[in-house]
Amino acid sequence: MKAPNGTELSAMANAIRALSMDAVQAANSGHPGMPMGMADVATVLWSRHMKFDPAAPGWADRDRFVLSAGHGSMLIYSLLHLTGFEDMTMDEIKRFRQLGSLTAGHPEYGHTPGVEATTGPLGQGISMAVGMALAERMLNARFGDDLVDHRTWVIASDGDLQEGISHEAISLAGHLKLNRLVVLWDDNDISIDGPTDLAESTDVLKRFDAAGWAVSRIDGHDYDAIDAALEAAKSSDKPVLIACKTTIGFGAPTKAGKSSSHGAPLGEEEIAGARKALGWTSPPFEIPADIIEAWRASGSADEHAAWTERLAASDKSDDLVAMLSGEPGQGELTALEAWRQKVAEDKPALATRASSGETLNAIIQDWPTLAGGSADLAGSNLTKTKDVGIVKAGDYAGQYIHFGIREHGMAACANGMSLHGGFRPHVATFLVFADYCRPSIRLSALMEQPVIYVMTHDSIGLGEDGPTHQPVETLASLRAIPNVDVYRPADALETAEAWELALKRLDGPTVLALSRQKVPHLRDDDGRDNRSEKGAYTLVDTESTPDVVLIGTGTETSLAVEAAEMLAKDGIAARVVSAPCLERFAAQDAGYRESVLPAGTPRVAVEAALRFGWDALIGVEGGFVGMTGFGASAPAPELYEHFGITAKAVADAARERVKA
Amino acid sequence: MKAPNGTELSAMANAIRALSMDAVQAANSGHPGMPMGMADVATVLWSRHMKFDPAAPGWADRDRFVLSAGHGSMLIYSLLHLTGFEDMTMDEIKRFRQLGSLTAGHPEYGHTPGVEATTGPLGQGISMAVGMALAERMLNARFGDDLVDHRTWVIASDGDLQEGISHEAISLAGHLKLNRLVVLWDDNDISIDGPTDLAESTDVLKRFDAAGWAVSRIDGHDYDAIDAALEAAKSSDKPVLIACKTTIGFGAPTKAGKSSSHGAPLGEEEIAGARKALGWTSPPFEIPADIIEAWRASGSADEHAAWTERLAASDKSDDLVAMLSGEPGQGELTALEAWRQKVAEDKPALATRASSGETLNAIIQDWPTLAGGSADLAGSNLTKTKDVGIVKAGDYAGQYIHFGIREHGMAACANGMSLHGGFRPHVATFLVFADYCRPSIRLSALMEQPVIYVMTHDSIGLGEDGPTHQPVETLASLRAIPNVDVYRPADALETAEAWELALKRLDGPTVLALSRQKVPHLRDDDGRDNRSEKGAYTLVDTESTPDVVLIGTGTETSLAVEAAEMLAKDGIAARVVSAPCLERFAAQDAGYRESVLPAGTPRVAVEAALRFGWDALIGVEGGFVGMTGFGASAPAPELYEHFGITAKAVADAARERVKA
Repeated sequence: MKAPNGTELSAMANAIRALSMDAVQAANSGHPGMPMGMADVATVLWSRHMKFDPAAPGWADRDRFVLSAGHGSMLIYSLLHLTGFEDMTMDEIKRFRQLGSLTAGHPEYGHTPGVEATTGPLGQGISMAVGMALAERMLNARFGDDLVDHRTWVIASDGDLQEGISHEAISLAGHLKLNRLVVLWDDNDISIDGPTDLAESTDVLKRFDAAGWAVSRIDGHDYDAIDAALEAAKSSDKPVLIACKTTIGFGAPTKAGKSSSHGAPLGEEEIAGARKALGWTSPPFEIPADIIEAWRASGSADEHAAWTERLAASDKSDDLVAMLSGEPGQGELTALEAWRQKVAEDKPALATRASSGETLNAIIQDWPTLAGGSADLAGSNLTKTKDVGIVKAGDYAGQYIHFGIREHGMAACANGMSLHGGFRPHVATFLVFADYCRPSIRLSALMEQPVIYVMTHDSIGLGEDGPTHQPVETLASLRAIPNVDVYRPADALETAEAWELALKRLDGPTVLALSRQKVPHLRDDDGRDNRSEKGAYTLVDTESTPDVVLIGTGTETSLAVEAAEMLAKDGIAARVVSAPCLERFAAQDAGYRESVLPAGTPRVAVEAALRFGWDALIGVEGGFVGMTGFGASAPAPELYEHFGITAKAVADAARERVKA
Repeated sequence: MKAPNGTELSAMANAIRALSMDAVQAANSGHPGMPMGMADVATVLWSRHMKFDPAAPGWADRDRFVLSAGHGSMLIYSLLHLTGFEDMTMDEIKRFRQLGSLTAGHPEYGHTPGVEATTGPLGQGISMAVGMALAERMLNARFGDDLVDHRTWVIASDGDLQEGISHEAISLAGHLKLNRLVVLWDDNDISIDGPTDLAESTDVLKRFDAAGWAVSRIDGHDYDAIDAALEAAKSSDKPVLIACKTTIGFGAPTKAGKSSSHGAPLGEEEIAGARKALGWTSPPFEIPADIIEAWRASGSADEHAAWTERLAASDKSDDLVAMLSGEPGQGELTALEAWRQKVAEDKPALATRASSGETLNAIIQDWPTLAGGSADLAGSNLTKTKDVGIVKAGDYAGQYIHFGIREHGMAACANGMSLHGGFRPHVATFLVFADYCRPSIRLSALMEQPVIYVMTHDSIGLGEDGPTHQPVETLASLRAIPNVDVYRPADALETAEAWELALKRLDGPTVLALSRQKVPHLRDDDGRDNRSEKGAYTLVDTESTPDVVLIGTGTETSLAVEAAEMLAKDGIAARVVSAPCLERFAAQDAGYRESVLPAGTPRVAVEAALRFGWDALIGVEGGFVGMTGFGASAPAPELYEHFGITAKAVADAARERVKA
């Protein structure tokens, strides 16, 4: 098969192989086997089928390409260089895996133009791709084929398919009939430890068929077969899996087809042999002009131009641009502010999960970008708003997604939706099951994607379900992740504020830790200022200089308020600080922090969770009323007594420290 | 179908239904639907097929029963009561979900005799069952059918099968042909949010068939069909899935077959209707004598007695008892001590993952209970010892398992092996992928199972793979989990010590965080004392009272040693404390802790990770040299410089604090 300029596709593919083996060799680190094995498939895809414009990596209607097998990063770096993405110079290729280069060990979104998702942790790419394909259909339902009509292509490895998250993702994709999703499985029979049959006997095609996918199998080195399969995939009414039987390290004389080509440089001698076998005569990091010319003819600049014209002519243009921008518009912001002030006025005493649900109900008609769902806990998480449209197979106009009992796939899907653009995804489950989606939460943070995680049932306050369902370490474990804002609002107003801050945030994820149980309304201001914005603030102050500062979060903030009242009777002046978001507070300047927590004044914190991480705020000498281990199964009020998380305990801890 | 005493099985099943709906009603909390739906299947299983002895819940050759759908806990509590497990009195049933009762909201291992695994977090039960079924075959390979010959039965829900971990578990079970495993899928078409088809279209039987399972479908209320399917399952050469089509809340007049019966009390009126529909005339918490008699005739006391005789007559009896005890024998302990002293003598400078591998190599022939593997990173994690036997389908005599790229399933499998008894499981992956198995690590901790997690590539020291692979928050997030001991050994000797402490621990899991990169040997003692036992200790002391204490863990401990040497040149006396395990140090008495970290002496810690959690040890004023966010892709030495984790930085931080 030839490119329009007459260059053989095999020569184009060999350019990928040469760059990959040479860059890995130069770095003395990396994975040459996969790019060499999948070079033919990638060449047909990028030169003949994929819709993209190297001059405009951010073109909204481009096809998305996700290298789920992120360890084969030289495949995408080669493709970006060869097709002419400006930033991906040969110098960058030469600096593969070096500090500050665009060619990091694994592809990193936001770091390298043309990389659509950060991949490497296996299973994440294919699962994010489901979110991209879903966002595409959802935007298409709103804006039509003229403006939104693209595909998501994935290259996935055996490892991607062995990971559990892939099960969640492919079941969801099959259920929703996301037919714009095509997964090219690098079926090379090799994983790091050796032949895949050391650990795997699954009939993968049957598995995907069971999940509602269209499946086929091809020789991944046969250009006609690849071309036909990709063409056929475009008219599928289901998501498509194409098993591409390939030889890992294709061309390497002794390591091809072996795990020795997977994750280490081939070595000079082997590379020389591969050059010979492939008929590649150019020195390292040089590509013959005709091959470059063939590659540079790839892409869809014409289609891009036509799309730009259609967009300009469309009466939906402003709406689409606004949705894609990610920025809340004035209407969105006004809705949030109005709701905040209404809550301040009404002062409802609700579980914070209920306040969260009411917030969503109040704003959703003004927030067309809001889209989300729950892992089969709609009635518990309360993010399913009244009369919201449900996203279904073939009908993607809704704003609510029944994700099924698939926390990990759900979170990855949200990452994919966020990366795709057009939506502000929120996903929900119980807080303790943050553990089930943790690898995806980490990627939200690393990729700076503003996914909103609504995590209810945030402590022993959930009661009878017991220690398997009661988070004690979960808040700490989430606070530990860089770039995650964790909110634990104390009442309805703080809940509204937390939603506002989460929705205004554009550079990273937010976790909203919400209560199952009711809380009193604590705030008596008019709600004009978002007081949660600084992370922690003085909720109840003393007339004189405080003797002690009591810090509460979430459902325990009211215990701090009660404790302060008890202490006042003893003549101890206790300031109450509400601390809905420790990350935001830590980001304030020293002056503000000192104004809330004066140096030298003893501190006592109360949170129905472990102390781990709190010493940074309260000091080693500070008091902490919370959990010291796992919870137990019993009605919530009994658990609070049993574990000693009471206003009296807070007051006692304060007295002790005031005395000392 | 009738029990031997003539009682209809339907009456026996209705006893489960009555207890379940009444207990949930009394607690005003719980899940009646599943026990009512699966009562018939459970009755046939427990009264006619399962091998167990209510008088001996710990009998080694009993069948294991895992209620993967742990929310239906009243099913197992009913069964334990009805079949005569002594502790499960009617009083306990009445105290369902109350503080301190044996009838916790979800079944808890170690809390309730007869409960084989803590379940509730979906997907964990079925995945632990794979480990139990594997351990059974592995013990069988060692001790033969006379002593080890039992099955693992699982009741799993739609949620269990939607979770990604189930994919990993069933692929592994299919690959290893674990034919002693039978999963009874409660195929009731209902999940919490409503009909399962809101979110699910998978052909489950095809899916399991693809994974190498024998599959069948039955009416879960047809006793003959259930009986025949269970009988057939016993002669399968593959793991078995039986789809049991049931009606959730069977018997409830208006809520049967609906999600309203899933997770909330039925209400008095509905219960009255159910009593009528089921023909159940007894008051709450009373079971007619003939039904009790029929239930008490269940079980296999005779088989137990015969087994006890066979055991007594066997020349392998002592070996089996020793393996099942979980306690290391004298030979095991001697091997560990000898190795520790040899390392002290040899002083090898290796990556700690390499030292770990050598430790395993040195002891494995003396540790027949050691069994484990890696998630396709054998050559990186180095837990695959020389000439170790590989566990394969039909040949279970080995000690190494190729788990495939299935971290979560691997960890759950290890929990199952540990719960089963006979083995000390160790499992391995990269430290950052602890996130992928975190829900199972949490269960190890909650169930107090001494699973050993070998987590290599424990920092930016892994270099080029970049931020997706570089843990920065992972140590903190693991330290945050109660009852997990996290070791980060500094050199070969500490690595040997950590293995020894992990293997001697019987009441909870251990994480060994190990380096990719080489470390110098730091210890010059003779290795007779396990100095890591107290978690932290003075590695290099000063002649005079220290001006500052430098605390290091793992690969950064040598930086603390270098820094102390730099400081000495300036006349600053710096003690170096090596802190391989912060949890063990925190558990020491105040006197010991003070002897290592004298109050008032400034402290500086160095660890190539985030500060989160460290303030508890070093104080807010303490110095910390480590990471402040995610890592980057580059050779490791450059990254250490780039992120400022150097001996000079440690020395500078110390100087600053000594001055202040």
